[in-house]
Parts: sequence; C-alpha cells; structure tokens
Amino acid sequence: MPKSLVRKALQGFQPYVPGEQPPDAEGWVKLNTNESPLPPSPRVIEAIREAAGETLRLYPSPTAAPARQAIARRFGLSPDQVTVGNGGDELIEMCFRAFVGAGDRVAFPTPTYPLFEPLCRIYEVEASTHPTEEFAELPASLAPDPAPLKFIVNPNSPTGALFGPAEVEAAVATSSGVVVIDEAYVDFAPRSCLPLLERHDNVVLLRTFSKSYGLAGMRIGFALGPAEVIATLDSVKESYNVDRLAIVAAVAAVEDESHHRKVVEEVVLNRGRLAAALEELGFEVVPSAANFVFVRPPQPASGVVAGLRERKVLVRHYDREPIAGWIRVTVGTSDQHERLLEALKEIL
Amino acid sequence: MPKSLVRKALQGFQPYVPGEQPPDAEGWVKLNTNESPLPPSPRVIEAIREAAGETLRLYPSPTAAPARQAIARRFGLSPDQVTVGNGGDELIEMCFRAFVGAGDRVAFPTPTYPLFEPLCRIYEVEASTHPTEEFAELPASLAPDPAPLKFIVNPNSPTGALFGPAEVEAAVATSSGVVVIDEAYVDFAPRSCLPLLERHDNVVLLRTFSKSYGLAGMRIGFALGPAEVIATLDSVKESYNVDRLAIVAAVAAVEDESHHRKVVEEVVLNRGRLAAALEELGFEVVPSAANFVFVRPPQPASGVVAGLRERKVLVRHYDREPIAGWIRVTVGTSDQHERLLEALKEIL
Repeated sequence: MPKSLVRKALQGFQPYVPGEQPPDAEGWVKLNTNESPLPPSPRVIEAIREAAGETLRLYPSPTAAPARQAIARRFGLSPDQVTVGNGGDELIEMCFRAFVGAGDRVAFPTPTYPLFEPLCRIYEVEASTHPTEEFAELPASLAPDPAPLKFIVNPNSPTGALFGPAEVEAAVATSSGVVVIDEAYVDFAPRSCLPLLERHDNVVLLRTFSKSYGLAGMRIGFALGPAEVIATLDSVKESYNVDRLAIVAAVAAVEDESHHRKVVEEVVLNRGRLAAALEELGFEVVPSAANFVFVRPPQPASGVVAGLRERKVLVRHYDREPIAGWIRVTVGTSDQHERLLEALKEIL
Repeated sequence: MPKSLVRKALQGFQPYVPGEQPPDAEGWVKLNTNESPLPPSPRVIEAIREAAGETLRLYPSPTAAPARQAIARRFGLSPDQVTVGNGGDELIEMCFRAFVGAGDRVAFPTPTYPLFEPLCRIYEVEASTHPTEEFAELPASLAPDPAPLKFIVNPNSPTGALFGPAEVEAAVATSSGVVVIDEAYVDFAPRSCLPLLERHDNVVLLRTFSKSYGLAGMRIGFALGPAEVIATLDSVKESYNVDRLAIVAAVAAVEDESHHRKVVEEVVLNRGRLAAALEELGFEVVPSAANFVFVRPPQPASGVVAGLRERKVLVRHYDREPIAGWIRVTVGTSDQHERLLEALKEIL
C-alpha cells in the first residue's frame, strides 16, 4: 500500500494496545485485564441461550431499548437518561464524536486509561493532560481548563485511586463543557458520582458490564446523563451498536442484583487480602477502590513481570513515566492469588 | 443541557435513521431492512449456546482471531487480509478514521446508503457526491475525483443495481486514494469484486453476516483488503470490537457454506417472483442483484406505504429526490410475499 493512503494525522500513530489475551485461557492465571474472577449470573447464561435462535436473523433494537429500560429502573432514572454501547470504549468514542471537533481539546488527569491519547490523535484534538501529584488528588488545574470535553476515570486506572467527591463535583461545576466520569470500576468503590446527575446538566457517567457483572466477553457498557446529553450521544452512535444477545445479557445481569453483589463482595474481600500479601513481600501498594491493585515491586518490575509470565501468570506492566516500574494486578480468586504469590516468592 | 455543549459542526445535525424495528416482530411482515427471511444455520445457534458460559467473564480476542482465520480460509486469503467489525457500519467508520481527516473529502455515487452523508458531517469531511444517471451506471466523474476515500456500494442500495466490473475496476485503478467497495449484498449478485484484491493495493471490500448468513442480530461484518490497508484499519478500531459470541457465530456461519448457499438460492428465486408480481401490479421495478427490489408504485408511494403499514406490512420508503416516490422491498418468504401482495391489491 502506498504510504500516502494513511491520512497524515495518523502517520507514525501508535494505537492503544490492550492487555494480552492468551488464545487458550486455560492454564493461565490471568490478572492483567481486570476481568471478574467470577462468572456472570447463571440467569444471564440462560437468557442468552434462550435468545440464541431464529430471531438472530433480525436486527437488534437500534436503541437497545430493553437494556435501557432495565438499567433506568435499576438506577431510578428515565430510559432517556441512559444509552448503551459496545463496551465502555464505544461510549468514550461517542463522547469524542459528540462534543469535540478537530482542533478542540480534551482534558484529563494523568496517569489514566491509556486509550484517551490515541483517540485524541485519531480525532485530531489536543490532549490536555493534567498530571496528578498524589494518585488520589484531582489536579487543581483540571477544573479551570476550558476544554469542551473532560474525562475523569474514577476510581482511576491503573492506580485504583478514588478522587474525592467534592473535588470531582467542583470540576464539573467549574467546567463549561461536558465532564465524563468513567466509573467502570465504581462498583468496587465506597461511593459513586451518581448524585451529580441531579445537580449538573453537563455530566455523563460511564459504567460497564465488563467488570462487576463478569461480562467482559459480551461488550456492554452504558452511559447515564441528562436526557439532552444522551440524545446527543445517540445521534453519533452506530445504528445497531449492541447486538441482540448483549441486550438480553444486560437485562438479565442488571436484574440479578444479588449475583452482582456477591461478585463485588468477593472481589473487595480478596482485594484486601492481596494487598496485604503483596505488602508483606515488600511491594508498595496504592490503596485501591477498584478490582485491581497498583503496586511497585521491591525489584525492577520488568524482571518480575517476565518471571511471572514464565510461570503463566499475567499482570499488566507499565514502562512509561511517571508510573514506570509499577504493575497492575487484577484481583482474582484465592487460588489465583496463591499461584501468584508462590511465583513471586520464587522470583524475588 | 446548554446548547453550546454540542460541538459546532453537529448543530442541526440529522443522524441516519435506521429502518423501523417493531419491538415485537411477531405479526409483522417485515420487509423494510433487508434481513434474511431464513434463520441462521443451526450450527451457528449451537455454537453460540455452547460458548455462552463462564468464559464470558473474559474479554474476547481483540483481533477476533478465530473469525479472521475462518474468513481467510473461506476466501483463500491470509488472515492479515481480513478484519472483523461490529457490523459493516463499524467498518465504514474505521475507513473514515483511517483514511480521512477534517477538511478532506469522501466521494460516492448517489443515491446510495444514506449513512455516508451523516458520517461526513460527524468526521467534518466534505461529501463529494456523484449522481448516477442510470442506476446501474457508475458516474464517470467518480474515478477522477481526488478524494482520498471513496465508497461504492455494489450491488447498490437502495436501488439493487450492480455496477459493471470494468467501470468499478477503472475507478479503483484511477484513484490515488482508497476505494471501498461495500459488498453487503454481493452474495445475491452474479459476481463480486473479489478479483480486484489481486490487482490493486488500494481497494477494500466490505462484507456482512447480516444478510445472506441471517445474522443481522449479531452485528458482524468483515473487510477484505491488502495486509497494510487492513493493519491501518486495525490501528483505529476499538480494542475489543466484536464480542465472544459474535466471533463463534462468524466461524460457524462461514464454515456452513451449504446453509449459506440455501439462503442465497431461496432469496434469488423469490426475488424473481416478487419482481414479476409487482410488475404485474403496475410497479416499475429496477433489476436487482440484491436481496430486495427497488420499485415505484403506480400510485403515490406515501399512501401505499401507509396502507401497507396499517396491514402490518413494513417496507422502506424514500421521500427525497432523486428517489422520492420509490419503495425498497426486502425479499421475504413466499408467505410474506402473499401477505404483501394481498395488501397491495386492497390498497391499489
């Protein structure tokens, strides 16, 4: 292909690289991409199997209406305050398409989800980054930034830190543009920013079924926001962005709150144990409000990560400042933690 | 929401409106969105039910690797010449993101798939439209257009007309940019543009499982092209754009060629019967190479469409020039055609 076919803005572009997905998950202790250690609700599996039939020949509801309704009921909102996406990533892209054009800027604290910077390249907007001094402190420079679109991942990834509700609300109140609070991990945190929806007309919350509902494989995220903001997101979404089985999975998942609570409780319990065990091995551990812990090993991280990989344990390694030398470890089952800790004892 | 939150380029934006999907498909004769009248292969259903289990907690293969491999085998290509999308629409958007930036232009013949113009608005590119004089003739002005990205839907929608292979190849050969041939309907046509892949490094073919594989509800499309063009598309796709069940569905569907052939043969047979019956009722009928017929009723279309709707028969109506007064009717089963024709006899 002649090089000139790629558009200029993308020449030399480094896309976001997702965590490794070994083709055969069997045998691996997979603690690298923040999946749920527990499976989805049996009711979800049953609903999918039931819906897998002749009606797959028909397009899904373009608005994923049954999922919107079920999610709205769960959060005490109206269905027009909810939209559903092909994973949280699609909702992030919808925010780019709805709220910024080429030459605009998008602001966010760093370190954070490493998808935002490549998206800024793709959409030709300026990435206005605000480095955190302390992981759990929202940079003061974020609120006055005039960017028409801001993202706050809360709890943040990869740090697991939760920004304070007052600082987040102040950033929303001060911002003239849209502030998107990506709450992908919020079910594992002591509080969410849901109440902000009642007080601000420029805030969007992103949620996902990938973590606390055990449905990363189904690609379902949702956004909660003021009806007019949601309508704007809908105007730039793909027509049929969520498939029929994802819609029934979302409905069944959100309606089985007791299974959801069980997953969350087990992860929160295991998170404390994992953090304590890693501290005991000499790791620096950031207090986590998510389903992972962000840690710095007592030895160079690259060797530790390679040693783990040899022993079929996958974790996520960060090699760029300011978090070079840090590792993100997803909270797993007790068995998975045992294998991780045994491997670490051999390596260290 | 303050109006100023929407980006300027989108103020007054009219999104693409997909065909109506009645929440309860039962009772409707749904001939408005080109779905397959026959269900997907039983092997697809079985594969989905088998895969609907605990592994849904894990992310899918980011490259949808098993689907790429199966599709590559089917077409005698290498897996790096294939990418998979959340329906053909996502692949179209990937082409925008990969090959044009704000201020560029995207060229296509008109009338055609009404998604391109709204996407031009969203991506802030100029829509360079080339009106067809005859539905089956590619406008001569398309080939010399300097646009870095062109789309040719072939067979075209909503007309069903097939552009000649020599004209299409000439357009590819003359173009300095990428030419995307959207072959969503090509399985119902006498020939495809697949051989162009061997002779040109700037061509991409789009295909879908939504029509001839009976899987509109699963959202799976794929692109075939030179490895470098495919790699560029991959660099701008969402990380996990196709879910686990869609991947297994694609593999099972592409491997059951005999079911696929059965669907195509039945649709082609019924298409001829439908076209003949409508002609007999006084409709003007465009020769179709797709799974629908594009027709002009002998009376004002709006009344005919409304009358059909009252009788629970859905077709797609076009009310803008140059195709105002035309109707697109998806080829259905014999029973569906009977209900359509009875309804028409009452109305006309």
